[in-house]
Amino acid sequence: MNIRGLSLIGSKVGAPGGAKFQAFDPAAGKSLDPVFQSASAAELEQAVRLADAAAPAWAKLSGAERNRFLRLVADKLDQHAAELAARAVAETGLALARCTGEIARTSGQLRLYGEAAVRGDWLDARIETALPDRKPLPKPDHRSLLRPIGPVVVFGSSNFPFAYSVAGGDTASAFAAGCPVIVKAHPAHPGAGELVGQLIAEAVRECGLPEGSFSLLFDAGFGAGQALVQHPMVKAVGFTGSLAGGRKLADLAAARPEPIPVYAEMGSINPVFILPGALAERSAAMVDGLHASATLGMGQFCTNPGLIVLQRSPAAEEFVRALAAKLTATPEAAMLTPGIRKNYATGTAARTQQPGVKVIAEAKSTAACGAAPVWFEASAATFLGTPGLSAEIFGPSSLVVWCRDGAEMLEVARHLEGSLTATLQAGAVEAAAQGGLVDVLAAKAGRLVLNGYPTGVEVSHAMVHGGPYPAASDGGRSTSVGTRALNRWVRLVCYQNFPDTLLPAELQNTNPLGLLRLVNGDFTRTGV
Amino acid sequence: MNIRGLSLIGSKVGAPGGAKFQAFDPAAGKSLDPVFQSASAAELEQAVRLADAAAPAWAKLSGAERNRFLRLVADKLDQHAAELAARAVAETGLALARCTGEIARTSGQLRLYGEAAVRGDWLDARIETALPDRKPLPKPDHRSLLRPIGPVVVFGSSNFPFAYSVAGGDTASAFAAGCPVIVKAHPAHPGAGELVGQLIAEAVRECGLPEGSFSLLFDAGFGAGQALVQHPMVKAVGFTGSLAGGRKLADLAAARPEPIPVYAEMGSINPVFILPGALAERSAAMVDGLHASATLGMGQFCTNPGLIVLQRSPAAEEFVRALAAKLTATPEAAMLTPGIRKNYATGTAARTQQPGVKVIAEAKSTAACGAAPVWFEASAATFLGTPGLSAEIFGPSSLVVWCRDGAEMLEVARHLEGSLTATLQAGAVEAAAQGGLVDVLAAKAGRLVLNGYPTGVEVSHAMVHGGPYPAASDGGRSTSVGTRALNRWVRLVCYQNFPDTLLPAELQNTNPLGLLRLVNGDFTRTGV
Repeated sequence: MNIRGLSLIGSKVGAPGGAKFQAFDPAAGKSLDPVFQSASAAELEQAVRLADAAAPAWAKLSGAERNRFLRLVADKLDQHAAELAARAVAETGLALARCTGEIARTSGQLRLYGEAAVRGDWLDARIETALPDRKPLPKPDHRSLLRPIGPVVVFGSSNFPFAYSVAGGDTASAFAAGCPVIVKAHPAHPGAGELVGQLIAEAVRECGLPEGSFSLLFDAGFGAGQALVQHPMVKAVGFTGSLAGGRKLADLAAARPEPIPVYAEMGSINPVFILPGALAERSAAMVDGLHASATLGMGQFCTNPGLIVLQRSPAAEEFVRALAAKLTATPEAAMLTPGIRKNYATGTAARTQQPGVKVIAEAKSTAACGAAPVWFEASAATFLGTPGLSAEIFGPSSLVVWCRDGAEMLEVARHLEGSLTATLQAGAVEAAAQGGLVDVLAAKAGRLVLNGYPTGVEVSHAMVHGGPYPAASDGGRSTSVGTRALNRWVRLVCYQNFPDTLLPAELQNTNPLGLLRLVNGDFTRTGV
Repeated sequence: MNIRGLSLIGSKVGAPGGAKFQAFDPAAGKSLDPVFQSASAAELEQAVRLADAAAPAWAKLSGAERNRFLRLVADKLDQHAAELAARAVAETGLALARCTGEIARTSGQLRLYGEAAVRGDWLDARIETALPDRKPLPKPDHRSLLRPIGPVVVFGSSNFPFAYSVAGGDTASAFAAGCPVIVKAHPAHPGAGELVGQLIAEAVRECGLPEGSFSLLFDAGFGAGQALVQHPMVKAVGFTGSLAGGRKLADLAAARPEPIPVYAEMGSINPVFILPGALAERSAAMVDGLHASATLGMGQFCTNPGLIVLQRSPAAEEFVRALAAKLTATPEAAMLTPGIRKNYATGTAARTQQPGVKVIAEAKSTAACGAAPVWFEASAATFLGTPGLSAEIFGPSSLVVWCRDGAEMLEVARHLEGSLTATLQAGAVEAAAQGGLVDVLAAKAGRLVLNGYPTGVEVSHAMVHGGPYPAASDGGRSTSVGTRALNRWVRLVCYQNFPDTLLPAELQNTNPLGLLRLVNGDFTRTGV
């Protein structure tokens, strides 16, 4: 495959001429060919108009047709995995095994969401049959379900060149739900993005889908992304990235003449509460486990454990000492981009200056784009009194918060902002008594982890990857990982007194798709 | 019961001293006793703090406990129906039978949502059991469900003194979902609101629920409502009313440091498309049916048919002539408030001045707060070229749009903004060929009605009362009527590797509540 450095506008390749940029190899410290060209305003307009024109056809595609397309994209990713991974390694500095594994995860997601599209139970099909003789008024026949919302714009992430980028979770779930997709490529890995985009465009063609099914736009700046979010034909937005970026897009979307939903997953501090019993039972194992979780991908995960809450005790101090020693000995690694590296340096330097905050581990980092763990500690009182200490530092930096006792731990929990995850490490006996802490954390996070670590997000029916603001932009009502991700791209439609011939198959009398439907108040797969 | 004119702050009665206002009898044209006193800022703060303090207890109430409370409120409404209805008649000018019927609908809603709380299937409980031997990594146990979002603020409507006010659909669904509620009473019927509020407060006490479960605030202006939406402890908002009011609250909520969802149902023009075959088959019946729908409650329904789209033909002209004659002969009735009456007069007067728009029916209205139908007609070309003609005039005014042919009818459909409903009247033969029009309308409205009329909103599992903006503020993702209304007040929480003792009952191994759960990809009511 050939990387052209040009946007994909439906079935056409964009024209050169826009502002230029290049990918950057953070490990080698050099720019990568080719030069990428920003999409023009006319190309953006064309991409959106094509998507708008394709939306009705997409809304009528069966789940089986969507699945066929998603599986074809998945197969193409797997077939080209070596080439895709090699380019991503160069553009991100991530290890080859990580990139290869992420491609497998991405094709797995596409297939899982395709399967969900076929099964269709998530469409919440409901039927209330007519009661023509009801008094005082007859009851009409009502049938309702979730229908695709229309063109979706996806902003890929910096830290997942595949799983949360061009063919990533947002794109896959939007396609599975029946929506055309326009991706704004992340400039950190445009080459991998373009290769994936070409594969999607091939699959669109091979499945005979409308060309507006998919477009991929490059932009050296922020203008294209903002224009997409403000375009009247765009109906929803998916985003994975920073709080500042996600909030900006959410604000633009809320201020439109017709506001639209923005599903922004914006990272979080992922607090870990470690109780005395856990320290007594498995201090050494937790040193290894927490160190591994906190340094995975050099901390560049939205589920990176950024806050460690402990009660002060000799055992806790010994645990932190051992963990700090291990962190200090952690070899540096290249960060994803020079910009992320710079923000990490700025963020850790600023935290070093905070009154009441002390550095407890600082590993050596000498490469231009390199980074290594820098950890801090503070008292609960300092943490509670210093708003800035709740902010995430993206990268391998965490803050240890020392509490006097369980009551102060609970106070820290109550003080937390929304988070993607919250973790509790407890001993066998004390765990059962933590109902109060669990309830507080359940109001703060999308996923609670017991005796584990926050990194590692399973792609399954039960996963929740979202949470109260600022972890996500929609109040924790949705997830960007797992099959519930499809529910972000739909809206409700009810049909009153419609005959089978004018109803979607999902609502027809015989239940031709075999969906689980709520019929007159009872769930059934039989017809009416 | 005694109307004190004072807010209810948890279990306490508010203090006098705020800005004063009185209810107004629009039929008699006089103010009603007693004087109502606006809640103070301190009382508002207290109401929100009490709700915040009550939220954890509410989140732990079982569905059965919520149901018991909702049924008690319903029983109390029924017991006091005569007194409630009498006050509402005086405050709104609505007929006694309408008010009595609406109380029955309100208690029915409370019971239906209570039943949904007990059944709990809507909580979307999902379980993925662990696979400890999976390679390369073990699969953890994940269990997730919808949990209550926290304190909810409800703004009652002007036009439903019971069903969409203090104990109305938003309040009932929020309680059923497990959230404390603070109602900002609508000043159009504060006496009925206070009576209902007292009954809810009684039920809170009798069920032994925390006093923060419910508060009711009066305000002569808009300050209290805005302060509630901006309060950091408030987690979601329900609103039924005007586009201007709903948008204002949605904008305030989106601009908060922590944005929160606003579910605003803001009315719409509810287009009715009448095809030639329908006119040929049942013109006279449609004159009666459409007249009844358009003048029900003197047009003061959010589902009032405000746009009638026809192809010009002798039969269509005869239909409109007959309808216009019936509309012109419609006796006037008091509108809900002098303000609504004034807006109606202003809106119809302005439309009369629109170039290309002609009055086709104007019934006589002489009472100070009286109104009667005023209907208009315009060509499709005029409609498509005049943005103001898409705006709803709240009351018994509609616009007939004349199309050359089916193609122009489709163009009008494509041009529509979001609406709560869209209606299609078609003949027996032509109906089957309307798939294209139905698809366009399905992208524009929350409920499609075939060969019926938009008024009459069934409270059931399958109902959808919402729609794309500007019908509602959330892109048509939710409904404010029917059991899906509960889904507005929840967020997702996932538990990883939790033992039964720390899990909510909904997710425990034995499935003690007998919920329908998605276990390892299959729906079942059996345990794991």
